[in-house]
Amino acid sequence: MREVAIVGLGCTKFGEMWDKSFRDLFIEAGLMALEDAGMSGAQVEALYGGNMSSGIFIQQEHVGALIADYSGLISNNVPSTRVEAACASGGLALRSGIIAVASEYHDIVISAGIEKMTDIGAEKAMDALAAAADREWEAAVGATFPGLYAMMARAHMHEFGTTREQLAQVAVKNHYHGSMNPRAQFRNRITIDSVISSPLVADPLRLFDCSPITDGAAAVVLVPAERAREFTDTPIYVKAASQASDTISLHDRRSLTSIDATTVAADRAFKTARLERSNIDVAEVHDCFTIAEIMAIEDLRFFEKGRGGPATLAGDTAIGGKIPINTSGGLKACGHPVGATGIKQAVEIAEQLRGDAGKRQVEGAEIGLTHNVGGTGGTVVVHILAR
Amino acid sequence: MREVAIVGLGCTKFGEMWDKSFRDLFIEAGLMALEDAGMSGAQVEALYGGNMSSGIFIQQEHVGALIADYSGLISNNVPSTRVEAACASGGLALRSGIIAVASEYHDIVISAGIEKMTDIGAEKAMDALAAAADREWEAAVGATFPGLYAMMARAHMHEFGTTREQLAQVAVKNHYHGSMNPRAQFRNRITIDSVISSPLVADPLRLFDCSPITDGAAAVVLVPAERAREFTDTPIYVKAASQASDTISLHDRRSLTSIDATTVAADRAFKTARLERSNIDVAEVHDCFTIAEIMAIEDLRFFEKGRGGPATLAGDTAIGGKIPINTSGGLKACGHPVGATGIKQAVEIAEQLRGDAGKRQVEGAEIGLTHNVGGTGGTVVVHILAR
Repeated sequence: MREVAIVGLGCTKFGEMWDKSFRDLFIEAGLMALEDAGMSGAQVEALYGGNMSSGIFIQQEHVGALIADYSGLISNNVPSTRVEAACASGGLALRSGIIAVASEYHDIVISAGIEKMTDIGAEKAMDALAAAADREWEAAVGATFPGLYAMMARAHMHEFGTTREQLAQVAVKNHYHGSMNPRAQFRNRITIDSVISSPLVADPLRLFDCSPITDGAAAVVLVPAERAREFTDTPIYVKAASQASDTISLHDRRSLTSIDATTVAADRAFKTARLERSNIDVAEVHDCFTIAEIMAIEDLRFFEKGRGGPATLAGDTAIGGKIPINTSGGLKACGHPVGATGIKQAVEIAEQLRGDAGKRQVEGAEIGLTHNVGGTGGTVVVHILAR
Repeated sequence: MREVAIVGLGCTKFGEMWDKSFRDLFIEAGLMALEDAGMSGAQVEALYGGNMSSGIFIQQEHVGALIADYSGLISNNVPSTRVEAACASGGLALRSGIIAVASEYHDIVISAGIEKMTDIGAEKAMDALAAAADREWEAAVGATFPGLYAMMARAHMHEFGTTREQLAQVAVKNHYHGSMNPRAQFRNRITIDSVISSPLVADPLRLFDCSPITDGAAAVVLVPAERAREFTDTPIYVKAASQASDTISLHDRRSLTSIDATTVAADRAFKTARLERSNIDVAEVHDCFTIAEIMAIEDLRFFEKGRGGPATLAGDTAIGGKIPINTSGGLKACGHPVGATGIKQAVEIAEQLRGDAGKRQVEGAEIGLTHNVGGTGGTVVVHILAR
């Protein structure tokens, strides 16, 4: 199969975008990516759009055709495909686009992610998100995502001695990173005390342990690696695009304190890329809750199981630390428009590898990783990117 | 890119399946396909699932993980991806699986389609289906799919002199075909009179001009062509997998009487396959309404524009005619579980090419075509298959 490169990046501001519709957001991100690649829409051969639940959020399915139409790419009747795996929909759109280019079916592909979540209000949004869990065996009996991740947090604290302060430090660090990201939903710095004294959501998780409800979109332009220099001086090469599933229900898993699909997807990715964990200079991981980042950095095997909390508190995962995690601010501070997150992670890593990340630049970053989770770990997508 | 073959087929009975859930239906179709390929689940490397709107129909997203989980394929952590393009979701799942095998990312892939539509009742189902149209510019102002296709029918009658009887004959012929298909939702034969005297839905379309609300699932097993004989003596080869988009809104189109994306997708497919229209022995086309089949056989260029109605009335599209269309009974009589339809079409064509179609066998069929439409033509997927 042929190698694939990212040659264009686009990402909207994340937040409560009351003045922009679903279609506005997608077009903004898509046009930014095309402009960044110095490319016209007429050159695009296919679109892949990651979106979790436009059906529930805006009563609109068939969003592949919608985004092709409203972006004007309809002029060349581009194939446009929506892919969905809950909060991993963006990562899946990236992987689907990569496979389409690798297969030689298409040369120039846009992979995008989008979610417009705020229009239906917080209570309905919470129920929409519960559609990522097993509706019959989890959501229907009252389980919500804060509740499910709270159980994982409690088990992790019990099994490994992870502390309330260590959880809080994930949020503190990600808000610090987010404060340097112009796209972030939250740019205020917070303290361990402010996390611990924020309102309780699902014990032990408090408000500042949780990622917010967000509107936003992101897009990347993919081309065969051998054509990358036609479009950019700083191509970012895809070294691996890997995906794994696990049971959709948390209660069916081997463990409450590990997401096995993360380890499987990462093992596959490192094998394909012929790289070691120690080669990764910067990573975006799926911190939908603070406990999720601690489990992610352990299950990705950046840290030994149980050492994620202490490493976070020691500053190993902050910019300047051993392996900077979530320089964008992560889902926690940059925001989490669920279908867009996986693409935003790739945009952030690509900017880091280009050396374009401004104040949050990780010096000398050459290889990066993205980690995108659907539900409580039913789907995991891992990408390894290199400059 | 390497060639791909279909080596396993599975399809549930279509209808109002009150005793079977979404997950039951998928597992039934998937296991049939695996058994048909003489394969164990442990050999499967990836899943693609076409589904339009599980979010609205059963309040469940993340159905890729769900179907991997409930089918037991989770044991090998298979990547499982849901794709969606309204009623073309099944066709898209097939094309996505083909691209995945062609790319060499995966060797053995199941492409499946599923929809469980009856649980929420007809009125809510109609609104769910309206999510395939432009919610802001069509559905929100009262347009339904019968209404949109009725406008196309009226325009077609005006422009080409297509008659009420010609429309009715599509349904009569498809019920006749369906009467020979054990999987069909409707196996009763009907007459032109019974169509014309059925209740008016949206003038000129009457009840028997419309495809029904249906539950069902279908699945195919895909492998690299060079490995096909490991699994079957009758491999079916994929000669082309093509997809095109158009505006999501009907009012934005060049014409009310043609679906341009059909012609574009078909032209691309015939070019890739290096075949002519005259090479096609049997086709499954998207007859969500009787007018849709007439437009499809014209836009696919099996008949000149405006000649679809007369050709149907003359029997050219029945089994034994010039080019048998919808031998399964089509969406009209076999039923239309929207996400499953595109895969069911491939199952029907593959059975025809294998010579396994029983009473509805098209003698000597060697090459077949499937044509799957999303919405009023915002997405079209065309496959050409050969034995």
